[in-house]
Amino acid sequence: MYGSMSPFSSRSMASKTQVGFIGLGNMGNPMAKNLLKHGYPVIATDVFPESCKELQELGAQIVDNPAEVADKADRIVTMLPSSPNVIDVYTGANGILKKVKKGSLLIDSSTIDPAVSKEMALAVEKMGAVFMDAPVSGGVGAATSGKLTFMVGGVEEEFTAAQELLSCMGANVVYCGAVGTGQAAKICNNMLLAIGMIGTSETMNLGIRLGLDPKLLAKILNMSSGRCWSSDTYNPVPGVMEGVPSGNNYQGGFGTQLMAKDLGLAQATATNTKTPVPLGSLAHQIYRMMCARGYAGKDFSSVFMFLREDEKEEGQ
Amino acid sequence: MYGSMSPFSSRSMASKTQVGFIGLGNMGNPMAKNLLKHGYPVIATDVFPESCKELQELGAQIVDNPAEVADKADRIVTMLPSSPNVIDVYTGANGILKKVKKGSLLIDSSTIDPAVSKEMALAVEKMGAVFMDAPVSGGVGAATSGKLTFMVGGVEEEFTAAQELLSCMGANVVYCGAVGTGQAAKICNNMLLAIGMIGTSETMNLGIRLGLDPKLLAKILNMSSGRCWSSDTYNPVPGVMEGVPSGNNYQGGFGTQLMAKDLGLAQATATNTKTPVPLGSLAHQIYRMMCARGYAGKDFSSVFMFLREDEKEEGQ
Amino acid sequence: MYGSMSPFSSRSMASKTQVGFIGLGNMGNPMAKNLLKHGYPVIATDVFPESCKELQELGAQIVDNPAEVADKADRIVTMLPSSPNVIDVYTGANGILKKVKKGSLLIDSSTIDPAVSKEMALAVEKMGAVFMDAPVSGGVGAATSGKLTFMVGGVEEEFTAAQELLSCMGANVVYCGAVGTGQAAKICNNMLLAIGMIGTSETMNLGIRLGLDPKLLAKILNMSSGRCWSSDTYNPVPGVMEGVPSGNNYQGGFGTQLMAKDLGLAQATATNTKTPVPLGSLAHQIYRMMCARGYAGKDFSSVFMFLREDEKEEGQ
Amino acid sequence: MYGSMSPFSSRSMASKTQVGFIGLGNMGNPMAKNLLKHGYPVIATDVFPESCKELQELGAQIVDNPAEVADKADRIVTMLPSSPNVIDVYTGANGILKKVKKGSLLIDSSTIDPAVSKEMALAVEKMGAVFMDAPVSGGVGAATSGKLTFMVGGVEEEFTAAQELLSCMGANVVYCGAVGTGQAAKICNNMLLAIGMIGTSETMNLGIRLGLDPKLLAKILNMSSGRCWSSDTYNPVPGVMEGVPSGNNYQGGFGTQLMAKDLGLAQATATNTKTPVPLGSLAHQIYRMMCARGYAGKDFSSVFMFLREDEKEEGQ
Repeated sequence: MYGSMSPFSSRSMASKTQVGFIGLGNMGNPMAKNLLKHGYPVIATDVFPESCKELQELGAQIVDNPAEVADKADRIVTMLPSSPNVIDVYTGANGILKKVKKGSLLIDSSTIDPAVSKEMALAVEKMGAVFMDAPVSGGVGAATSGKLTFMVGGVEEEFTAAQELLSCMGANVVYCGAVGTGQAAKICNNMLLAIGMIGTSETMNLGIRLGLDPKLLAKILNMSSGRCWSSDTYNPVPGVMEGVPSGNNYQGGFGTQLMAKDLGLAQATATNTKTPVPLGSLAHQIYRMMCARGYAGKDFSSVFMFLREDEKEEGQ
Repeated sequence: MYGSMSPFSSRSMASKTQVGFIGLGNMGNPMAKNLLKHGYPVIATDVFPESCKELQELGAQIVDNPAEVADKADRIVTMLPSSPNVIDVYTGANGILKKVKKGSLLIDSSTIDPAVSKEMALAVEKMGAVFMDAPVSGGVGAATSGKLTFMVGGVEEEFTAAQELLSCMGANVVYCGAVGTGQAAKICNNMLLAIGMIGTSETMNLGIRLGLDPKLLAKILNMSSGRCWSSDTYNPVPGVMEGVPSGNNYQGGFGTQLMAKDLGLAQATATNTKTPVPLGSLAHQIYRMMCARGYAGKDFSSVFMFLREDEKEEGQ
Repeated sequence: MYGSMSPFSSRSMASKTQVGFIGLGNMGNPMAKNLLKHGYPVIATDVFPESCKELQELGAQIVDNPAEVADKADRIVTMLPSSPNVIDVYTGANGILKKVKKGSLLIDSSTIDPAVSKEMALAVEKMGAVFMDAPVSGGVGAATSGKLTFMVGGVEEEFTAAQELLSCMGANVVYCGAVGTGQAAKICNNMLLAIGMIGTSETMNLGIRLGLDPKLLAKILNMSSGRCWSSDTYNPVPGVMEGVPSGNNYQGGFGTQLMAKDLGLAQATATNTKTPVPLGSLAHQIYRMMCARGYAGKDFSSVFMFLREDEKEEGQ
Repeated sequence: MYGSMSPFSSRSMASKTQVGFIGLGNMGNPMAKNLLKHGYPVIATDVFPESCKELQELGAQIVDNPAEVADKADRIVTMLPSSPNVIDVYTGANGILKKVKKGSLLIDSSTIDPAVSKEMALAVEKMGAVFMDAPVSGGVGAATSGKLTFMVGGVEEEFTAAQELLSCMGANVVYCGAVGTGQAAKICNNMLLAIGMIGTSETMNLGIRLGLDPKLLAKILNMSSGRCWSSDTYNPVPGVMEGVPSGNNYQGGFGTQLMAKDLGLAQATATNTKTPVPLGSLAHQIYRMMCARGYAGKDFSSVFMFLREDEKEEGQ
């Protein structure tokens, strides 16, 4: 219904024509591969040339910079570490906007400040193209298996076109509202996740000190009102569950440093909107203290270890 | 196997003989009624004589004090507001221990400091009787409909006997371990519940300020890692769910003051065991601030309102 | 020594030539008046024309926009509410940079993110001019009486020139280091101030509840290690000291909303530099909650009232 | 005026008669020595016999238990680690109350819960004797040099008699009010001290990250509203001040574990009196986390190091 009236119908019909991909890091690399697997010709770039090799061998065309990607593809996905990278890739000297075509669809899957997403959307709109923010939940594993969840913000009429691409890389593609709401949903979820994880860790630790068996305590919480994702799906206490980072010395999973970054974004948006987030704010500080004390590279459920009594003397 | 050797077998076989009940408040009253409904003769007392009237009309025998209850019943349930009341009912001048019979089973369903439960257990044991702590989760509604959850701490051999009585008043009776672990499980659950509720409230408030529809945000959280009981079963935002206090001006439910009390217990046990509980501690402070600002009688999910911007000027 | 080699010597010698002033709000207005009193011809502008009337009557020349100020004065002071205003006044369509002269000295006394100060400094430097950040401590009273403290960041060689102007408006002019360190010093001081004020309020409230006389408690703290500016100079408890907002229903002084803004800046700089500031962060949240509960316009020492038990029921 | 009517005048006149001292730990030992120096015959005991040797060599009489002390002295000072020790020393099987004489003056200098002080006072009063709480501020150094500050709670008529003894061991003896207010004052001071110390550490760390010189920042804070004892007298940043633990790898001073204990008492009294103490509560948690991470034995100003970025990877 929407589509027939769309000024962009040529592009949205043009399935299996080239898709641009910018940012081939731990997440971007498997995502771009999934586009290739689904039969899309991919034209890609990254600031680190070596990041491009694997994709090139798989048949992707590698170009020098974002502007060249925009010159050759009218659908582009970006997956970058932080706001300044996004700003640079879009508006920099060799940025997308230097050569973007009218009617292009630009999807940013980076996790950044929603205010920056809105800024980018405005700049993109001025060039006659469309911008959507589509941050993901799920880590490298989900990116590899094509099971990511995308939270998408932007003009509703364009959602179907975005969904066509994103569903090659994810199991869920959720429309959240206007530009920036994809980021908002991601940030909100991760803030509550961090609160639940620290809360679960404190609670399990306290229960153990009070003489409860950790498996039994997890079972009781999970049948009661204390239940949360961190208690029933990703329990931070070694031995309570299998197949989670707590069972593997907190290797893999979602790094403490990345959680600290997302909580910093949550804090920034809360400050800008004058919203009180006392627990979210303390969660941010705790993950920040963990980074300062050597936990940056461990899974974020290692907060259980951070809070637990440690026998050895530190910092002597 | 355990039972056959038990010195208490006469009592545990003696179903449908008198059961004592001490503390006929909002919770104790419907609990005692459920014992009556299940055919147990009840012998009861309360410091407020008027609290006993209804039960008396239903056939319970009312006596003057805990000692008299202990004189006539060898199974007693206590349901009292706080630690000092429990200490008084057990060890006071007219306390249970003045007349407790050897082999009696004393079950305390109050929510109190597990250290006090352990003290009571020692004093009871010296008299040749058995003490179990069995605090409940679920409010007045669950007490009335016999759907409480009991978390039970004490000697495992006695659990079957306790279960026989408690299952008349609750849908779940969970054995947690040694004396005090029932309290520990209750306190741990409620601490994580409070953290989850405040976290959900902050998150929903932030998402709304960032332009997300609250129902959509709840849906996204509930399919993601932010999911928790407060987001999917008891959402604090008016209009997101039906049949919860947020839909009824935060009337009914679990009062902020009661949550503050339970968090105070959690804090005390954490302090005594030198366990860091940063979010639990801040949750305690937030519920304490809410009590100071007039929210004491509202459901604990009203923290959403406490954090939300209020238009009117206060305290002029 | 420095001065003789300076390319800007013509300007720095040119005392009593025109000084520009942009931003005539509660603070800027008395500051500009003090420049007039010291004999400087002032050329001023503000987005609200009515703000300019009083200064015009006192002899200042009023122009339409910052560019015109820059056209006529080679020393300019800006005093604006927040970062976006500063960005606009410097780099906007009618901003200072449109007409700034080489060698001009631009002093920004707004309290903003030090990162924005650095951005402005770079932009100003490209035009061949000099930028210094010089936020103030002290309120409207100190601005009126010329007793402000200026914390100055920028090239050390230019400090003397800045000091000449700033000492007309303040009693202390402190050189802090490179551009942005003036803001850093201001933000750091106010963060510690907020922590001390909330801490003093909690402590006084707790002591009173424990039976201590508030004046006696203040005296004990002030002779002990609990001593701080909020306990000995600006005590938040009514009746303990005279001449402070707590003695006047928390009227006047430094508004809760302004403190919340400064704490937001502290939080942003801490997030950006990955510095853990757990108490600063919680202080921010408490002042933010106070704004949400109607304390925005009261002096920031009213946190004592916010934490104190309130008899009346709220939000029914 | 008071004195002439006192039923205890015989004792209070009886200067230089025997003084009992119970608890010869790090603090009690130098305190008792100062009584000897001032010419008081001391009769002492401790649960660890070896703690008594030094004092015995200096002329003190050592007895087996508190009851024997009470049998021989009608003025007794107790200096014990925590509430349970105090309860035992007063009310235990060989406790003071077994042999206390009517009219005796019992001064407890331990830092404990004021509620326990009140309990002890009631028990002592029943025996016709007088109890005062008189906790100290100042560490081992001040105890040795007789420069402690005593905060005294109890009947005002007895203050002069207490002061006579306490002034041999301290430079300041402050009357605080009814029994328990000495503890209250101590606890309040130390809570505000902890808040100020953590706040100063966060602030200094943030300022340094923002490019400020630490000595300069301390100077600016100390001339501004951020000033507090921790910034101007006991600065936690190495190199800013001399003669403080931060200059000596945080050796000596006031241990993190002891601060955590005092904050636990503050938390307990706040919980019991339903007083919100958000920053005090978070300060408690931070010192508790520090104990869990190996800082227990370092001076409490080492929170600066705890918050600072650490290069090495921990807990691998």
